[in-house]
Amino acid sequence: MNFHTRKWVKPEDLNPNGTLFGGSLLRWIDEEAAIYAIVQLGNHKVVTKLISEVNFVSSAQQGDIIELGITATAFGRTSITLRCVVRNKITHKNILTIERMVFVNIGPDGKPAPHGKTEISYSHERILQELGKVGES
Amino acid sequence: MNFHTRKWVKPEDLNPNGTLFGGSLLRWIDEEAAIYAIVQLGNHKVVTKLISEVNFVSSAQQGDIIELGITATAFGRTSITLRCVVRNKITHKNILTIERMVFVNIGPDGKPAPHGKTEISYSHERILQELGKVGES
Amino acid sequence: MNFHTRKWVKPEDLNPNGTLFGGSLLRWIDEEAAIYAIVQLGNHKVVTKLISEVNFVSSAQQGDIIELGITATAFGRTSITLRCVVRNKITHKNILTIERMVFVNIGPDGKPAPHGKTEISYSHERILQELGKVGES
Amino acid sequence: MNFHTRKWVKPEDLNPNGTLFGGSLLRWIDEEAAIYAIVQLGNHKVVTKLISEVNFVSSAQQGDIIELGITATAFGRTSITLRCVVRNKITHKNILTIERMVFVNIGPDGKPAPHGKTEISYSHERILQELGKVGES
Amino acid sequence: MNFHTRKWVKPEDLNPNGTLFGGSLLRWIDEEAAIYAIVQLGNHKVVTKLISEVNFVSSAQQGDIIELGITATAFGRTSITLRCVVRNKITHKNILTIERMVFVNIGPDGKPAPHGKTEISYSHERILQELGKVGES
Amino acid sequence: MNFHTRKWVKPEDLNPNGTLFGGSLLRWIDEEAAIYAIVQLGNHKVVTKLISEVNFVSSAQQGDIIELGITATAFGRTSITLRCVVRNKITHKNILTIERMVFVNIGPDGKPAPHGKTEISYSHERILQELGKVGES
Repeated sequence: MNFHTRKWVKPEDLNPNGTLFGGSLLRWIDEEAAIYAIVQLGNHKVVTKLISEVNFVSSAQQGDIIELGITATAFGRTSITLRCVVRNKITHKNILTIERMVFVNIGPDGKPAPHGKTEISYSHERILQELGKVGES
Repeated sequence: MNFHTRKWVKPEDLNPNGTLFGGSLLRWIDEEAAIYAIVQLGNHKVVTKLISEVNFVSSAQQGDIIELGITATAFGRTSITLRCVVRNKITHKNILTIERMVFVNIGPDGKPAPHGKTEISYSHERILQELGKVGES
Repeated sequence: MNFHTRKWVKPEDLNPNGTLFGGSLLRWIDEEAAIYAIVQLGNHKVVTKLISEVNFVSSAQQGDIIELGITATAFGRTSITLRCVVRNKITHKNILTIERMVFVNIGPDGKPAPHGKTEISYSHERILQELGKVGES
Repeated sequence: MNFHTRKWVKPEDLNPNGTLFGGSLLRWIDEEAAIYAIVQLGNHKVVTKLISEVNFVSSAQQGDIIELGITATAFGRTSITLRCVVRNKITHKNILTIERMVFVNIGPDGKPAPHGKTEISYSHERILQELGKVGES
Repeated sequence: MNFHTRKWVKPEDLNPNGTLFGGSLLRWIDEEAAIYAIVQLGNHKVVTKLISEVNFVSSAQQGDIIELGITATAFGRTSITLRCVVRNKITHKNILTIERMVFVNIGPDGKPAPHGKTEISYSHERILQELGKVGES
Repeated sequence: MNFHTRKWVKPEDLNPNGTLFGGSLLRWIDEEAAIYAIVQLGNHKVVTKLISEVNFVSSAQQGDIIELGITATAFGRTSITLRCVVRNKITHKNILTIERMVFVNIGPDGKPAPHGKTEISYSHERILQELGKVGES
């Protein structure tokens, strides 16, 4: 699993108890997962269908830097299933895990449509580019 | 299940496809569920522990009025389990259902603490008040 | 008056003095009142025309749970007048009261249009449903 | 009345009918009025006490530039009363007027405190500076 | 340079270190500068092309009142160049300066278009109005 | 340069002309750059000091997925200089480039403090992890 999007926990993200508001975290994840699904399926029209088993493992504090990791775990005919981990970027301690987020590929008629993908495919060329570089965060 | 908090779907709540952004919806629910747990347990310090099986049944459009319903389905020693339904206020068509949201009661030492509740209890007096009234939305 | 929508006062809702920002409160009320007017008049196209006498009775703090109550007090030919109370959900202490919020029913031509309503009517069936239930918050 | 703060009406400020959301406008005004009161009374601790007679004269559209004007109309012993006008910056057509917004000066003990002001006083030196300049927007 | 739009630094505007978040400040300035360019060029379709040399001179704290000042420094055939200063309204201490913000005038075809302006022109009539008034903030 | 944080351009991010609001983009970049500086310098207390030469190369539309890339280009005694590129994730077309963003390392006394770094160092171990993986986005 690669970790991409990062967030810096600011006062606007806190619940009244002073820790990261779970609802803000879920909002960030849903956006990140939608982006992942769009990129993998090559289609901007995807919708969240199901989220199963969200575990809030530990909380985050103001000032923490967190990062979101997502990977595809299954490809259906019209759907894609993702697994998600949110962790503290510095300590790598898990904050939240989601076992299955299912997105559905939508066709021009607004109905589920076959996407024709069977494996994680998008980023081969990008990974090759990255292999030529070292040491960046 | 009673439905309380309502939202009017505004442009700021939409995803790029022009329907209600799932992340916004999850944010609203997490706040509403936290409020429900706080009120039932009589303690401001509760944390989301687990969300299981979130089903996005149908989507909502700009201008829709939606309402959030929550009810307690189980009381653990230090936890409370909620069920949640989001539906269109006018058509009563379901938009999202969550089978189980588990909140944990936190004590002054920051650790899970027994809450001493075994049933839905808070609103008896309020329901009595409501029985004396008719016809309001 | 029934109280529906609830809010959990978070850091993002505070003014620089650390209490609930009046502007945030007014924003919440305007949305809730618009929803009430839309539901009662059965028309999504309503506009705020007048707000008269807003009293900030007491302030709210971070972590407070507040609830918004609205009821119709008068039906004009093309308008509806609402009364609004915001209070602390736990203590029932009033935070803000608004004597009159006037919404106007807009027709397809963009002009005020008769709405044909003379009394609070929407929720009869829902109240009946609620009478079959007890003990929920 | 001088007009200062301007806003560019963006999609995030719209109601579902596609015009400026009244709640957003009220939020902007409450902030601007608080700033005016703080500057005039020379005290950061002021609270909104009363708003009387808010008239929504016309609506604003996406892309409109609006400007907020505020002036003090009365000085009480511990309070200050403001009048507010929001208008379209280009056409000067009024969008909203508020006859009276009353702010109270709060002392170190958290209670209303005399402010010792009896007239609009702050900006004399600034106006003098402005008289030396021409032609700016 | 005249200073117009004011902001009251609220918790939602802070970075995790408790001072004004630079990104929030840049967002405010970009809106204010766009408004200035639109008003001067008499065209709603302007785009930010270049920002050169942004200096963060000092920070702002929660509760500070800041004001944004902008003036045009050059008129190109299809562009306008602005200078911007953000300062504390009470102390007049500079918080941020931007030497050059270049906006481009866009024609109906979506391409840069001559705007025909060669000097700051919009506000002559408004300044005349202001000269008749004294003492307001 | 590695690209990490991604954004899905939503209605709330648009300017009134319907393209990505420059101010929103600047807000995203300032957060991402602060995160990069914090991680490289191993200190949460860093402040933006200077931004030089921001070029808005092309605009982004609703629904676009954009990604932010940052790399360190120079290490001063108490500062770090970053270069930033924002591009469309699918087409790789540049949207914005920033030549130099300078952050200063702040010590416990609130003053600039030496950070002791002379090269990009943080992510060696992470890159090694990444080399063992293929094909993810």
